[in-house]
Order: sequence, then C-alpha cells, then structure tokens
Amino acid sequence: MANPSPALLARLADLLGSKGFSADAGEMAPWLTDWRGRFQGRAAALLSPSSTGEVAEIVRLCAGAGVPIVPQGGNTSMVGGATPSPDGDALILSLRRMNRIRDLSPEDNLAICEAGVILAHLHEAAEAQGRRFPLSLGAKDNATIGGLVSTNAGGTQVLRFGTMRGLVAGLEAVLPDGTIFDGLAPLKKDNRGYDLRHLLIGAEGTLGIVTAASLILVPAVAERAVAWVGLRDPEIALALLHRLEERIPGAIESFELVPAVALDLVLAHIPGARAPLAGRHDWHVLVEAAGVEAEARLAAALNDALGQGSADDALIAASQGQADALWRIRDSISEAERKDGIAVKHDVSVPVADMPAFMTATAVAVEGAFPGTRVIAFGHLGDGNVHFNVRAPRDAAASWLDNEGAAVTRFVHDAVVAAGGSISAEHGIGQMKRSELERVGDPARLFMLRAIKSALDPRGIMNPGKLVPLAHEPRPS
Amino acid sequence: MANPSPALLARLADLLGSKGFSADAGEMAPWLTDWRGRFQGRAAALLSPSSTGEVAEIVRLCAGAGVPIVPQGGNTSMVGGATPSPDGDALILSLRRMNRIRDLSPEDNLAICEAGVILAHLHEAAEAQGRRFPLSLGAKDNATIGGLVSTNAGGTQVLRFGTMRGLVAGLEAVLPDGTIFDGLAPLKKDNRGYDLRHLLIGAEGTLGIVTAASLILVPAVAERAVAWVGLRDPEIALALLHRLEERIPGAIESFELVPAVALDLVLAHIPGARAPLAGRHDWHVLVEAAGVEAEARLAAALNDALGQGSADDALIAASQGQADALWRIRDSISEAERKDGIAVKHDVSVPVADMPAFMTATAVAVEGAFPGTRVIAFGHLGDGNVHFNVRAPRDAAASWLDNEGAAVTRFVHDAVVAAGGSISAEHGIGQMKRSELERVGDPARLFMLRAIKSALDPRGIMNPGKLVPLAHEPRPS
Repeated sequence: MANPSPALLARLADLLGSKGFSADAGEMAPWLTDWRGRFQGRAAALLSPSSTGEVAEIVRLCAGAGVPIVPQGGNTSMVGGATPSPDGDALILSLRRMNRIRDLSPEDNLAICEAGVILAHLHEAAEAQGRRFPLSLGAKDNATIGGLVSTNAGGTQVLRFGTMRGLVAGLEAVLPDGTIFDGLAPLKKDNRGYDLRHLLIGAEGTLGIVTAASLILVPAVAERAVAWVGLRDPEIALALLHRLEERIPGAIESFELVPAVALDLVLAHIPGARAPLAGRHDWHVLVEAAGVEAEARLAAALNDALGQGSADDALIAASQGQADALWRIRDSISEAERKDGIAVKHDVSVPVADMPAFMTATAVAVEGAFPGTRVIAFGHLGDGNVHFNVRAPRDAAASWLDNEGAAVTRFVHDAVVAAGGSISAEHGIGQMKRSELERVGDPARLFMLRAIKSALDPRGIMNPGKLVPLAHEPRPS
Repeated sequence: MANPSPALLARLADLLGSKGFSADAGEMAPWLTDWRGRFQGRAAALLSPSSTGEVAEIVRLCAGAGVPIVPQGGNTSMVGGATPSPDGDALILSLRRMNRIRDLSPEDNLAICEAGVILAHLHEAAEAQGRRFPLSLGAKDNATIGGLVSTNAGGTQVLRFGTMRGLVAGLEAVLPDGTIFDGLAPLKKDNRGYDLRHLLIGAEGTLGIVTAASLILVPAVAERAVAWVGLRDPEIALALLHRLEERIPGAIESFELVPAVALDLVLAHIPGARAPLAGRHDWHVLVEAAGVEAEARLAAALNDALGQGSADDALIAASQGQADALWRIRDSISEAERKDGIAVKHDVSVPVADMPAFMTATAVAVEGAFPGTRVIAFGHLGDGNVHFNVRAPRDAAASWLDNEGAAVTRFVHDAVVAAGGSISAEHGIGQMKRSELERVGDPARLFMLRAIKSALDPRGIMNPGKLVPLAHEPRPS
C-alpha cells in the first residue's frame, strides 16, 4: 500500500481545516497506541472529519491514492483493533468529532447517534427522556457508538438485551470506495437480500466506516435488585439461572459467575473490598434483576432456590450503596488479577449449556499441562462467555508471558474449538487474535471472510491488518 | 451455465438412490411452478438428499460441472424464489426429506432442526415439551425451516419476537463449492468477524444451502387474549399500540390493522363472517396479548384507551371460538380480495413511526394517479409492514393487471423509497422483485449485493436468477 503523498495530505488538510487535520506528533501520540500499551503504530496524519460527507470525501481520496485508513472511536479496543501498523503509511480517521445525537424519540424508542457519540452520553440523554440504552461496559466513558457497533460490543447486560447487534435498528456507513450506504431508517422488516447492516456490525472497520446508527431504546427501569449468591459449582449456577428465568421471566439482566479464587484476589488486593457472605463458597453469582417489584420477586425466587438446595447462601443488597459494592467486587477482578501477578487472558464462548463442563474440564487440563498455573475463569455465564484467565506459576519470571503465553493460549483455544465455541466472544479479533483465527478457523469460515473482504475492499485500504487473515499477506511468525 | 450431462445425472442417481433422485415428469411437476401459479420452470431432475453430507456431495458435483441448483423447501414463496428458470438447465434440490428435529431441549430453550422440518411440526414438538417456537404464518403446514431461514420469514408474531433472523441461534449450510459451514453451535456471543449466519439468513439460497438451524424456543404461554378495536385512523392506532406496550410491556404479540374497506370485503365474500362491533368504524385493530393475566391486563388497558378517546369501541374475545373468528377475519382478507376482483399487491415497510402518514398520503396519491383504483392497506402496523394492495377499477378488463400493474407497482415502490422504506418487507425478492430492486436500489446496496454474490458463488450456480440483480445478466424488459 502507498504512503500518503504530500499532495494528498495537503488536500486533506484543506478539506478538513485545522480542527480536522493534524500531523503533529504530540497530538497524534495518544492515538498511536492502544490503551493497554500492547501495540504501537505510526501514522502520517490524524483526520477528524465533522460530517458523513467529509468521511466520504476522505475515503474517496484515499481509495484513489491506495492509502490505508484506520478508523478510530474511543480507542478502547482489547485486541489492537484501532492501532495503525508500525509502517506508518496509514491515516487515522477519528470519528470523535462526529458526536451529535441527531434525534432521540422516547415515543418510538429510538436514538440516531453519530459514530463519535460516547456511550455514557447516550445513557444520560436516554435517561433524561425516561428511556434507557441497555448496553454498558467498563469503558463507557470513552467507548463510542461507532466502535461499539463495529466491534459488536457486549458487556454485562447482554443476557437480556443481547449484544450491540440486537440494538442497532439502522446504520449509515461509508464504503471502501467512498460511497455512502444509507441504511439508517429503522425498518423492523426488510428482506431486500443480504443483510448489509449485520455485515457491517462487528466488521471492525474492515468493510467500511460506520458513521451513524439508529439505536433501540427501552423503557427506564422501575426497580432494580442486586443479589450475591454462594453455591457449589458452575453446573448448579446454570440450573439456578434457568430457575430464575422461569420464575421471573424477562427480569434477569445480569448473571455473573465468580469463583472463590477471584473473590479471594479482590479481597487481597482491592482496598475496602469485603466478602459479601459469611461462610466460604467455592463459587458465587452476582444476579441483577430489573422490573416491577424486582426486589420482592428476586427475593422470593432465591428463597425457593435456597430451600431446594440450588443455592447455599444468598443476600439481596439493601441499598444502592450495597449494590454498588457487590458490583465493585465483580468489576475489580481484572485489577486484582493484575496486582496479583502475570496471567494470560482469554475471552471465549461456548454454548451456554456446555459452559459448566467446559470450565471444569479445561481448568483441570490447563493446570495439568502447564504445572504451577492456576485458572481463574469468571464472567457472563448466562451468555456462555467467560474470561478464562491462566495465572503464571508463582515462581515464574517476567518473561513467562512471552515464553509460555502463546502455548497456553493455543491450548485454551484448541479446547474452545473442540467445544464448538468462539475464540473471541466479545473483544473481536483486531490484530491480536488474527493469527489464532487463521490457525483454528475452519476453511469454510476463512474462505468466506477472505472472499467478502476482497470483494468489498479490493484495494485493502480499510483498517488493514485487522480481523481477516488474508492468505497472501506475510504472517507474523 | 451448463446443462446437466447424462454422466452427472447418472452419478447423482447413484449417490441418492431411488428415494432421492427423480427425473419423472409427473413427480417433478408440482415443484416446477410456484403455488400461486405465476412462474413456471423446467428442471432435469429433482434431487432429494437425506443428509448434509449428500447435499455437500451434490453441490460439489454440480460446482465441478457448472450446473445450477435451485434449493426448495415447502415451495410456498410469494416471489417465485424456489421456481427454476424455464431454460431447464437447473436441478431442483429439495430439502424435504431432511425433516428430523435433531434435538429439542426445553431446558436450554433450543431446537436443532434440519432444513426440511415443517413449521407446524416444530410447533407441535415444542408444545409437547412446554415450549413454543414463536413464529407462525399462513403456510405453516407446508413451509420448512430451511425456507423460513433462507427468506427470513416474518408472519403475525414479529412484533414481540422478531423475524426468523432473531430466532436463529446457529446455522449449518453447504457453501457453493460444496464445503460445509458448521455454525450450528448456539453461541450467544461470537465476534470472529463478519457474521456469516446473518449473511445466509435471507439470502434465498443464493450463497449456499441452509441444511439445519439451531432455533430459539420460548416458554409456553400462560394465557392469551384477543381483542378487536374500532378507531378513527392509523395515527390513533399507532398511539394505541404505544400505550398498550407501555401499560403491559412485553405482552402485545400481534397488532394488525384492518381498514373498513377490508372488513367490508370479508363480510361480503367470506361465508359466515360477521362484523365484530356493532357500529361502523373507519379502521380496526386486532390485538393479541399473551402472558400472565393477559385478558385482565388487556381489558384494563383497553378500557383506559376507550376513556381517553384513543379507541372508539373494543371487545375482548370471550372464548377460543370467538378469538378464532376474529383471527379468521384478518386471515381472510387476501381471499376476500381475490374474490372481489383484480388487485396489484405490495409487501412494503417503512419506519413504524412514519407508517400512518405513509399509508394515508400514498393511498390518496395512488388513487389520484390511477383513477378508479382503490387502495386496501392492511397488516402488521407494529412492524411498519403493511400489505399495500391496489384494486383495479370496477370496469377494468382482465388485462388491466398486465397493462397497468407494473406502473402501479413502480408508483408505490417510488413512494416507499422516498419514505426510506423497503420494497420487500417479508416476502423477499426472488425472481418477481428483482428488476424493481435494480430499478430503485441505491448504488451502494446494489454494489454490495453483487460483490458478495460474485465472491461467494463465482460460478453463479446457487439459485441463479433470484434476488441479486447482476449487472451483466440479460434483464427482463
């Protein structure tokens, strides 16, 4: 691919003005690395268009010159999905200036947001109108709608409302040749062939640039209840989930599994953290229910579960402060892990019904194959999605991650594939998981990914080096 | 494309045996025309494989020989989507023998069905286990899962549960080169790039052949209530829908709009039909609610609506027989229209919020542009999907449809496009709407459809002549 010529850069600077064009090293620096500092790239300029028309013009110019574009929202990718390559021939296209909520209709339960709208801002705007956008995640103060759409983001409320995919009613995007795909109209039924909206969702900017989305809102919640449950094993946790969903249908919004080892880490490393229950339990679940009489209904259902032995102990948060404290335990696990030492992390999914057996068997297998390691698996049991982390042996050197990490990852991913699962449940592929996708991806899937990428982006200018393992590219060794 | 050679036919006959291969004109006849008798094709043979492996082998052989394949389920397409072309070089691949429900788990709320499972059979199997597959339509005794998936079928319960797209948890398909895409595992979260499941759903067999699907079940319904409401106009009907959804969230499963002219037709032409309400109303709505205390809650909500003037009259069916009678009115509209005379039909959608204004304005415009015509628009208001039918002038000759039909259709479709809508809400494109899709489709959409089709089916053997208006093909004049 081509480096941007001085003439192209001048033309882009002219198009975008001083607010929309920067080649200043200091201004660009934060956007040349991912937030975890794993990937470092270079770029000739940072482009910040303020309208879909400007995005289209940028893409037309770059397509003509064969210059690659790396679209970027809040730059919160977990897999290096928004970091340019080190060769420096790409331009970063930031959507952050396109941050208008074009429309928000509580009556129609719809919001039309530009790609740069920050998730937390949408939450606030919806709330002000008695509505809710029911997707949230840790990075909500930085993550943008365009990035959330392009990575089909998940989070902690997927159980009830699904991932981003289920909340997008319409899309506007700029295709790799600069034409605008206007699919913003929120059509509930539309059978005009291949679903282009779903193709662009989760495509990580490799097929075009999402510039706006029509998003589905839901009514604000009447009441919330958060509970902490101690129980014996993941099998019983799943049975509890089924029982709760049968008893209070449509009310369970979160069902997060926490092993004793993860709770112990939080208690050891996070100041102020306290064990929610008096006794010791091998496994815990954080449950959140919402809706009319959520607290009373959740309490009754949990009481029954205790009576029938599918839970050993349980408490319902008596105040918002207590609910927050329970959530803080769950949300602090990653931080506690980091403080505890080195670990290899995996964001994987298998069918929900198979998750308990998968967790148990794979933990035994990993700890057997890599002596001294310890598996800490936690997360969204109801989505079949756990963060399956493997802690280095206590005596491991800092180089363990570099020396052993890849082998551990291959071992875990092989188990996932054998279980019919996905090596990326919610974080995407980006640049981090591309070689693994190529290694374990079945030929039919790889053929389709490559064929679609080549057909829609024949010049390969849209976020190159991400997601699709192209057969002809040089592979990282 | 090539005609199947005697050698290929012999090889297929050998592969499939006498149950799976027929070149008998009498046996093939019912499958060479669509059920409305609008399209007539020819085929060299009817192939009826009994397994995914056999489907894969058929496709491999045909791909090698360049022989086209027309996949077929229940043959209930409204747009000629399963009828081969008249040139006779295609083979019909019927999925009807692949009719096993491979698994049905009430605990996991999942059923794995082969493509040939008939919808009504799945309904029964789910019901026997205290579950429900919440998609239904008139052709349920013939329509198959493979066809329903491949056309992203809708029906009368889309309001709450969505179209087929929302009910497919996993897919198995044979791609155009004969490889098997195994995506059956019901993963709730899977971010391994382009969503191939959603690409195959609604692709009308042009990108591969769906051989099985993992389908989402829901709990059986505790209680149902059906109401008939008389009201002033579609605007008020939509306001009523919003009010009901606010009052009894998650309970409204159907909300079907019926104009006085449609009710009059049913009363005139369908033996035994009776007007549900005593007075005359310009518009009617059939509402179905489901769930705990559905009848009491719907009655209370409708009472409020009557008090606030957003409904003029309403009744709730007092028995199953009365509920059936109300549904029979709705379901008889098409038959009554046929008995009444000639009409051009359109299955269109616009954003829900815009539907009332669209219906009113477009009816006036059509009746003005084509004097003597009468618009009868009815259907799924809550989905933004009405069947917008235009009755010929009373004195029109039988040739009116041939002479004027296309002009009326273009007029209606232009209005749909201007409203940001879809010229095919639920019936798909097939061979009937392909030239219209080409005429009104925006360049970005047409480019993507063509590029994807060419990339995944480079030989063009999968259901040729359907859905994708390929630029290089001869177009019907």
